[in-house]
Amino acid sequence: MGITDQLVKFATAEVPEVAAAMMRLSLFDWAACGIAGAMEPEFAAFARAQRVEDGPAQVFGGGALGAAAAALLNGTLSHALDYDDTHFAHIGHPSVAVPPAVVALAQTLDTPLTDAVDAATIGVEASILTGIWLGRSHYQVGYHQTATAGAFGATLAAARLLGLDKHQTRNALGLCASMASGVKAQFGTMAKPLNAGLAARTGVEAALWAQAGMTAAQHGLEGPLGFGATHHGEGAEIKMPRKEWQINTISHKYHACCHGLHAMLEALAGVDLEAERIAVVKIRTHPRWMSVCNIAAPKTGLEVKFSYAHTAAMTLLGHRTGAIANFSDDLARDKSIIALRERVEVVEDESLSETQSLVTLTTVSGEVRRLRHDLLAPMTLEARSIKLRMKINALLGAPRADALWQAATGSNLEAVTACFADATPES
Amino acid sequence: MGITDQLVKFATAEVPEVAAAMMRLSLFDWAACGIAGAMEPEFAAFARAQRVEDGPAQVFGGGALGAAAAALLNGTLSHALDYDDTHFAHIGHPSVAVPPAVVALAQTLDTPLTDAVDAATIGVEASILTGIWLGRSHYQVGYHQTATAGAFGATLAAARLLGLDKHQTRNALGLCASMASGVKAQFGTMAKPLNAGLAARTGVEAALWAQAGMTAAQHGLEGPLGFGATHHGEGAEIKMPRKEWQINTISHKYHACCHGLHAMLEALAGVDLEAERIAVVKIRTHPRWMSVCNIAAPKTGLEVKFSYAHTAAMTLLGHRTGAIANFSDDLARDKSIIALRERVEVVEDESLSETQSLVTLTTVSGEVRRLRHDLLAPMTLEARSIKLRMKINALLGAPRADALWQAATGSNLEAVTACFADATPES
Repeated sequence: MGITDQLVKFATAEVPEVAAAMMRLSLFDWAACGIAGAMEPEFAAFARAQRVEDGPAQVFGGGALGAAAAALLNGTLSHALDYDDTHFAHIGHPSVAVPPAVVALAQTLDTPLTDAVDAATIGVEASILTGIWLGRSHYQVGYHQTATAGAFGATLAAARLLGLDKHQTRNALGLCASMASGVKAQFGTMAKPLNAGLAARTGVEAALWAQAGMTAAQHGLEGPLGFGATHHGEGAEIKMPRKEWQINTISHKYHACCHGLHAMLEALAGVDLEAERIAVVKIRTHPRWMSVCNIAAPKTGLEVKFSYAHTAAMTLLGHRTGAIANFSDDLARDKSIIALRERVEVVEDESLSETQSLVTLTTVSGEVRRLRHDLLAPMTLEARSIKLRMKINALLGAPRADALWQAATGSNLEAVTACFADATPES
Repeated sequence: MGITDQLVKFATAEVPEVAAAMMRLSLFDWAACGIAGAMEPEFAAFARAQRVEDGPAQVFGGGALGAAAAALLNGTLSHALDYDDTHFAHIGHPSVAVPPAVVALAQTLDTPLTDAVDAATIGVEASILTGIWLGRSHYQVGYHQTATAGAFGATLAAARLLGLDKHQTRNALGLCASMASGVKAQFGTMAKPLNAGLAARTGVEAALWAQAGMTAAQHGLEGPLGFGATHHGEGAEIKMPRKEWQINTISHKYHACCHGLHAMLEALAGVDLEAERIAVVKIRTHPRWMSVCNIAAPKTGLEVKFSYAHTAAMTLLGHRTGAIANFSDDLARDKSIIALRERVEVVEDESLSETQSLVTLTTVSGEVRRLRHDLLAPMTLEARSIKLRMKINALLGAPRADALWQAATGSNLEAVTACFADATPES
């Protein structure tokens, strides 16, 4: 069975509880990233340009638009900080494409939160499977898989929300084959998050237009002259999920800095030691990261995001690396952090993978602690919840984080979207 | 100089009178195709789905939307009949991507018609140049050049209308590199015209968003991981126009049927001979067309669109092949047409090109007339005007065709868009 047929069938699949629970964590994380993203002043004019229409779908930073426009804006803002979740096999960020489509459309349809979560779970899973199907060749040549594969996931989720029949769902995926887009030439520009927003909007529009009777290629992904053939797709084999869903292996970001630092920061997470007791911190990491995030003496907040030594010292001194605001020029110049970072040594270690870090901490009294972490290590839902809540506390402050957490784990979609507005920076 | 630099510079180029005059002909033709396309019942639900917002930009079939939504709907409806213009080197239909963007945006900006025509000329020329730059490899692998190259043309035209500076225009083209899309798997479905509408909308949005400060890849077309590298672009050399503009070699369609019949129909155009005086009509055509449009005894209006014999007889009997309505099941069964078509003989001739046809007409008295036509033969602007007015008369009826002609050659954009509404089928 071709991938289009498989996806059409998957649109109405039953969603296991664990997968839906994982989706709720990602929904919580995604919404927090969007609320924080809406505070970025550089996106203010773009957001204003979208706010020319009215509608039922709440957008981050306040206001409500039609479903398609809300999906576009919310998708973009939620990826603005690059602080959202990742799936390594998908090679993309599933939550910035699918949830914005689902939440916007669900608001216009008055869908219960449980059904919206199910649709998002299906969509996220479908985007990861499509990403695997497109494969590394698609990514390497320059497509932004978050957006391309993401659009198909968003489309399938929207088709489920709208209750499209099989024929309409097939047309929706066919329409998506002409609309899914986004290139990696945008990395480092504001168009990178925009790619995510466009994918979310494509999902909403493709499904709505198929519902309005638009026809399209019947095998839009794998057919001749279709999306895969034109977009350097590998056509890798995919397996529709039974027990093990791909969504269960999503990685969340718990630190507002370069991904290369995360394993080290996780390794140091539990350490409770006064700074004056620390003699040497030796960090071993994969050679790839040495040229990416090893600025020894960062001078600005932005540079701190790429510094093992400085972020290690921040963590040991209790400055939360989950808080965007802590990557400031002030903390880059902080004397006690600088004093400690001078005792940090970073060495490459080829025996480690890119997701692993090994830290050796020696105290002034000669005690040695060996700490290690692998970002791919399995994690319970509960452990994830705790870490995500800490992250979002740091990002939005405890009152807003708690309100969002209650809403995302509740049964009322309006309670979730009520948290989108009135963003106030962390105090 | 890379193509992005060249296009940025070209955005503000001066437009020669001849090129602008050609653009006005295409504007007239495009608007008529859109007005007629809006009468297609299968697009009614899609059109309704767009009409959820209000705005200043008139759409075909009535109503007014925001610029982006109007560009989307008008681009789609104008390509619904596949009766719009073509450029063979571009491998696409320039007018269904660029003018819908320009007209919609110009209405929101209150741009004078002359300036709107200049912007459309720049945009159409840019879309043809981009099509040539992307090349045949891009088309062959499955991209719909009308939409992909068209989006870049629409973006440049919109950038000119908005008066973007060079930096913003570069960002607009960069944004377009993430948004331009459309695959040929859609041919034969409603998503083919939709591709054109999406390209038009992309032009409006990319330019507006660049104006709102969105940044993007600085060499979106030719840069690493950019549009060309990812989309099988050839990167063929292009020359920015000086005296000879590509727009001057646009082909218009004068018959509402398969393109393979057009050279023959043109060859027969001037014949004034009573049917009973005709003994034999021998049509010579390129072998390629024999399997495409040589249905000897068509039974339906749709089959007539692919029949040399039937359309030749229609023309000789004075039934206008420019009128959509003449491709009816009634005329497929018309006894006098059938009687004449039985005296038509079609033979393949390898010495002819795909755009040529040679017709030998023998009368009952033994007189022989040899008629020939090449669709690529140069044509004066005046000859084009006459033929286009005949086509649009047949398509919309003389009163509406005249009103549209006056408007398209006048100075008031509102007069053009006033013709979009209140579409009534040809009487």
